[in-house]
Amino acid sequence: MKIAVDAMGGDYAPEAPVAAGAAFAREHPDVEICLVGRTADIERVLPGDAPSNLQIEHTDAVISGEDEPVRAVRRNQDASLVVAARMVREGRAAAMLSAGNTGALVAAGLLVVGRIPGIERPALAPVLPTFDGRGVLLLDAGATVDASAENIVQFAKMGTIYSKGVLGVDTPRVGLLNIGTEASKGNAVTKEAYELLQTSGLNFVGNVEAREILDGHCNVVVCDGFIGNIVLKTIEGVGLGLFSALRGAFMSSFSGKVAGAIAKPSLRGLRDRFDYAEYGGAPFLGVAGGCLKAHGSSNQRAWYKALEQAERFTRNQLLERLTAALQNKEDTR
Amino acid sequence: MKIAVDAMGGDYAPEAPVAAGAAFAREHPDVEICLVGRTADIERVLPGDAPSNLQIEHTDAVISGEDEPVRAVRRNQDASLVVAARMVREGRAAAMLSAGNTGALVAAGLLVVGRIPGIERPALAPVLPTFDGRGVLLLDAGATVDASAENIVQFAKMGTIYSKGVLGVDTPRVGLLNIGTEASKGNAVTKEAYELLQTSGLNFVGNVEAREILDGHCNVVVCDGFIGNIVLKTIEGVGLGLFSALRGAFMSSFSGKVAGAIAKPSLRGLRDRFDYAEYGGAPFLGVAGGCLKAHGSSNQRAWYKALEQAERFTRNQLLERLTAALQNKEDTR
Repeated sequence: MKIAVDAMGGDYAPEAPVAAGAAFAREHPDVEICLVGRTADIERVLPGDAPSNLQIEHTDAVISGEDEPVRAVRRNQDASLVVAARMVREGRAAAMLSAGNTGALVAAGLLVVGRIPGIERPALAPVLPTFDGRGVLLLDAGATVDASAENIVQFAKMGTIYSKGVLGVDTPRVGLLNIGTEASKGNAVTKEAYELLQTSGLNFVGNVEAREILDGHCNVVVCDGFIGNIVLKTIEGVGLGLFSALRGAFMSSFSGKVAGAIAKPSLRGLRDRFDYAEYGGAPFLGVAGGCLKAHGSSNQRAWYKALEQAERFTRNQLLERLTAALQNKEDTR
Repeated sequence: MKIAVDAMGGDYAPEAPVAAGAAFAREHPDVEICLVGRTADIERVLPGDAPSNLQIEHTDAVISGEDEPVRAVRRNQDASLVVAARMVREGRAAAMLSAGNTGALVAAGLLVVGRIPGIERPALAPVLPTFDGRGVLLLDAGATVDASAENIVQFAKMGTIYSKGVLGVDTPRVGLLNIGTEASKGNAVTKEAYELLQTSGLNFVGNVEAREILDGHCNVVVCDGFIGNIVLKTIEGVGLGLFSALRGAFMSSFSGKVAGAIAKPSLRGLRDRFDYAEYGGAPFLGVAGGCLKAHGSSNQRAWYKALEQAERFTRNQLLERLTAALQNKEDTR
């Protein structure tokens, strides 16, 4: 199995993906890790004892976070992200990973890798940290805006298969993100999606309100991509803002500083529970190959976790299971 | 000026609305406060020295939090919430307030009070606590799902007038909630709304991402009611969850308990900055009278703040200004 890593994308590239890739290759002799990017930049940060199953695929170009995604992918066929996607497309890699421009990853997934037959619209599926520490899979987190009810049902099917196959949940509980728990609540799309989900054969537990997402009540929460992206960024904004305000509160007085110093280990434990690094990357489900987005500010640990996910995705034949399920060949219950 | 108060709705009714109403009446001799509800229940908690501008309008029935809103309002003409709305409708009160069932308040606003001519869909407009302590007006927070681009432009107009007239912001900055800052981002409705807002004559500052809502960058943020409700509840869920996890982290060890005791004043200051009670009620903008929703768990202080808002709404002739603006008679810049 070969995994292609975009070594140039993300806040801590190339250091973090290269170090994580080297460590992963060393501990998984049966997996080949292919670092895609500028050879000189990669070699500069490569550990001296790099294992032989760690390779470099040289390319000069890079897509930046500011580039307009679709245009960048179309015009920049040599960009590290696009080269990694092409390796998946051509069967030279089983999966690819990038911590770069999310829109460009989505565009590369759609334009270069292509969709699984039968999938109308794919979904980006990050695991959100929950208060119970188990995490919840949210899809779609922004790949498909203006999703139809049928799209949302496909998200639920794909989320169920991923939750079982990669996250190890036996019978994933699927919730529909809505503004009330009653079946009659919501907008036109959620009302239709609710009815379709009830007869989908999935373990559908009904509507879930936004304030309950992080309670760990569901394993999979589905919604339109516009709404999922808003939820994701609201959680991030409130979480970061509160932790920063908390730091301010501790630093504002001498007694606060003392208390902060004493409480540091407990607070760090709390922060770690909400650390995206523990939850790895977000798979782009519905494209015809393993495509995973690592968080933009992924450190080495986050990269390693994302590599584990990509490896499990491939080893557990997720692509084959998704393809079969979408052709109704697999029982998704 | 008379303000009708649903004395039976909310977690702390009738104590909180009655005590706040009595205090408000005492300090505002020119305002009449009319407590609507069961006389016996109200009198039981009424202070002995209640001022003469505090009245009671007796009614036995109450709409509960679990009732289906539209049906409850239609069938239960004697419910305290409906009686208060009818007082506004009939001109017997300038404004009404309730901390009860939000859906029922929306239904009573639409069915009993009615809309301002020219308003297609009204909006619920709570002030969200921001990290800078000034707050941001969000509309719509759940009254109008599947809002059109034109509806969203009306929300922006109403929000601007309310922000100026009641919250005292000189030239409110209006942002469109979206999944990216570029004009080309978003779903079909936000793309259209973006164009309309640019030529609306409002102080439109462009798209605002969910993670920036609480930064205080905008004074007014507009979006579809489904999305606004999801954002509101996500913020509530993450905030409550984090504060509770924080408490858990402090209580999990002896040193944590010590630190928690020392840090208590700073932490309380932080929590107070996010306390809805400081921000009063959410006006239901677009209905032909003052209708305000107090938070369901409003204590006496929150009720008092909401009464202040209702008084300012009336004194500053918000209804007249909204009516004129929607007929393009007022410059909303």
